[in-house]
Parts: sequence; C-alpha cells; structure tokens
Amino acid sequence: MYSQNYNSGYAPAPGYAPSTHGSLHSHGSVHSTHSTYSHRPRHSSNYSSQSYSSGAPAGVDPTLWSYFSNVDRDHSGTITVQELQQALVNGDWSHFDLDTVKMLMGIFDVDRSGTINYNEFAGLWKYVSDWQNVFRHFDRDRSGTIEGHELSEALQSFGYKLSPHLLRMIEQKYASAPTSTYGPPPGINFDRFVRACVAVKTLTEAFQRADVNRSGWVQFNYEQFMSIVLSAP
Amino acid sequence: MYSQNYNSGYAPAPGYAPSTHGSLHSHGSVHSTHSTYSHRPRHSSNYSSQSYSSGAPAGVDPTLWSYFSNVDRDHSGTITVQELQQALVNGDWSHFDLDTVKMLMGIFDVDRSGTINYNEFAGLWKYVSDWQNVFRHFDRDRSGTIEGHELSEALQSFGYKLSPHLLRMIEQKYASAPTSTYGPPPGINFDRFVRACVAVKTLTEAFQRADVNRSGWVQFNYEQFMSIVLSAP
Ligand SMILES: [Ca+2]
Ligand SMILES: [Ca+2]
Ligand SMILES: [Ca+2]
Ligand SMILES: [Ca+2]
Repeated sequence: MYSQNYNSGYAPAPGYAPSTHGSLHSHGSVHSTHSTYSHRPRHSSNYSSQSYSSGAPAGVDPTLWSYFSNVDRDHSGTITVQELQQALVNGDWSHFDLDTVKMLMGIFDVDRSGTINYNEFAGLWKYVSDWQNVFRHFDRDRSGTIEGHELSEALQSFGYKLSPHLLRMIEQKYASAPTSTYGPPPGINFDRFVRACVAVKTLTEAFQRADVNRSGWVQFNYEQFMSIVLSAP
Repeated sequence: MYSQNYNSGYAPAPGYAPSTHGSLHSHGSVHSTHSTYSHRPRHSSNYSSQSYSSGAPAGVDPTLWSYFSNVDRDHSGTITVQELQQALVNGDWSHFDLDTVKMLMGIFDVDRSGTINYNEFAGLWKYVSDWQNVFRHFDRDRSGTIEGHELSEALQSFGYKLSPHLLRMIEQKYASAPTSTYGPPPGINFDRFVRACVAVKTLTEAFQRADVNRSGWVQFNYEQFMSIVLSAP
C-alpha cells in the first residue's frame, strides 16, 4: 500500500502499443490496418472504395481518401469536431464521447487549426485502427465491451500494476452505464476504453516525473496537482 | 506559486450553491423552480401538464409527474441512464455527455438500483434546475455558453481562486469543441459547465483534506493520487 505499487516499465507491451502522441504514417501502413477496422464511418458500406478513388488527389491512398470524404460531410476539405463525432461510432453504434473526440483532435490536429485535414486524418485513422486491434484482443468473450477482468489484463499487459481498488474505480468511471448493486457491472465500450488507457498513462507518467527520487511518494502544491489532473483526457 | 493559492472558503456563495450531494426535495420546492427551467425533456411541449395529471399517483406533483413520465419512455416506472441521456439536452439541443449523466445518477440514484425512480427524479430535477439558474446568471452575454471570463467569475464567486493557467485549462478541457489558434475559444455548454464545477469542487476538497497542516502542499502515494483523480466526475 505504501510502497511503489506502479512499476517502472510504463511502456505498453509490443503489439499493444498505440502511441498517445500521434505521428503521420505512410499511406501504406494505414492501408495495411484499416481493412480490419470495423468502426467505419456510418454509411460507408453504402459506397465501394472504387467509386471514390477517382476523386482522390494524385499520390493519395484512394480507400483512405474515401473514408476522409465520408467523414468530411460538407466536403470543406477539413473535418470538424462535429463531423468527427458524427463519424466515430462504437460497436453498439453509440457515438464517441466528446471528450474522446477532443482527445483525438488534441493528438492529431498537428497544426492546431481546430480541424483535421487529410494528412492529420491518416494519423488519426491509424491510431484508432491500432486501438481497435488492442480492444478486440482484450475483449476475450467477444461481448463488444471490456469487462473488469479484461480491463485488468489489458492494463497489466501495458505495464500498469494497479490495485484491485483502482481497477474497480476505472471500471466504474469508464463504464458505459452506471453500476448498480444488482446485476453484473456494465462494460466499457471502445471509445471510453481508449480514453481510460490514455488517462492512466498520462496520470502515471506525471506521477513518475514528480517522484524524482523514486520513493513512491510525491509532493504537490494545488497548482501542480490541478494542472496534472486537468491535463488527463 | 508556492504559497496557498486556493482559498479556505470552499463553499459556493449563497444563491449559487447547488449541493453536489442531492437530497430529495418537497414537491412544493420543485414546483417553484421547474417552471423556469428551459431544459425540458424533448417533446414535453407537446403535452399540457393537465393531460398528465390524471395519471399521477395521489399526492404527487402532477407537473413533475408529467416530466417523469416523458423521460420514462417505456413507462417502466424507472428511468435508465439511456432514457435520462435521451431527455437531457443543452440549449443547442446537444445531449448531455454520458459522464455528466452518470455523475447525476451517482448523486441521485440513492438506492443504487442503477435507475432513477420518481422520488429520485424529484431531487435530480431540482438540482438541474438550480444549476440552470446558476448557468443563466453567469452567461452574461446570453450566448448560451460559458466563456473564459464568465467561467472565471463563476468559479471565483464559488470561492475558488484559480490561477489564469488553471482557468485556461478548465476552459479548454470542458469547452464543447477543441481550441484552435484561430478565432475565439469555444464556450462551455450547460452540462459540461456543471461537470467542470463539480470536478473543481471534488478535487479542491480532496486536496484540502490531504493538506492537514494547511501548508499548501500535500504528499500522495500513487494509490492515493489515482483514487482522488478517479473520484472526480
Ligand atoms: Ca488541423
Ligand atoms: Ca468483453
Ligand atoms: Ca434508483
Ligand atoms: Ca456566454
């Protein structure tokens, strides 16, 4: 309890390591993952990727361009937070929370325009695709949501040794419905799972930075404490 | 910076003090506030309160009962998180975030059934109505959102002396859209304003409890730090 109960290997295990700081990926690598991605923009199945390829600028991946064009509903050439939230849905068709969409824009809106252009979209799409693979991997019972033991396994594989108490708090905070004393606790859907993992990573790294002598204890004033908390998604 | 930059008067100023721990209010007091409440359940304007009063159990406020019945779409007698999220909308008709709805259920689902019954609804309705009055009061320019200076004034009137840096972080985290380097920062809509205020209150009180000798500094281990952060909505 009073010893260091987080481990020093904060890096997610190889294979389950979507970086929280996005970079733009080559079209090739995007292409290699998005074909397994089930969180397509709504109605994207109404279109074949072929029908879009003719509209793609030269040198641009036609399939990814078709996704971008679908999300960019008013064809302004950039995606707004509203368009992105409209497009990103979970397995149960619920829309991503605004906080998750803002987190994604915070990572991938590299030029801080407040919108996502095609190049930024490539990075975002790759990131979401990678997380989708992580989510599928840990959704052991294929329920479409991450339950307590699945969450525990996921966070442990990322290198976070969290107490049962903290795991239960994360499970409840990010669950897609409130916990009741009756019935099993509700699971965590895709977008909230990603947000939970990024929040744990952000907070743990901030704690680690403050714990300069590795005693397991940190000292904060109010300003420092609030800054750290508010910086988590 | 290193001195105590939060003040000891944490209590919201009189008149702007919706308690974060809900209690059930008499029908009379609910009745006196809900008539000024604009966040009606959708379609409630299609019904007069008269048409519902005949269905209300004896001793129950007929208008409040009509609201409850509107929100309880499948007429099961209790409101689920989905029904509540469906019903609660901001001035721009956007739905409340799941996190805000879960926060409300965490306060008002007194019997921890995972749903809201009529008595619990009375408390919830009063709470939301009170916050609505707070929101209207601080939305000085009647824009329907709380902008930076309005947020600053609101939090200061509640007794929180926050640095410009923290205020900017809160403004950005709870804004209804991401901040861009172009144009004015987006405002905070109703449901996120309530969540921001409750989060600041929860975190500040936790810091204050940990700061036993009032030095302005606290010491946390990882478990304590994460517990506090995860307990904020
Ligand atoms: Ca951009
Ligand atoms: Ca599962
Ligand atoms: Ca209940
Ligand atoms: Ca305003």
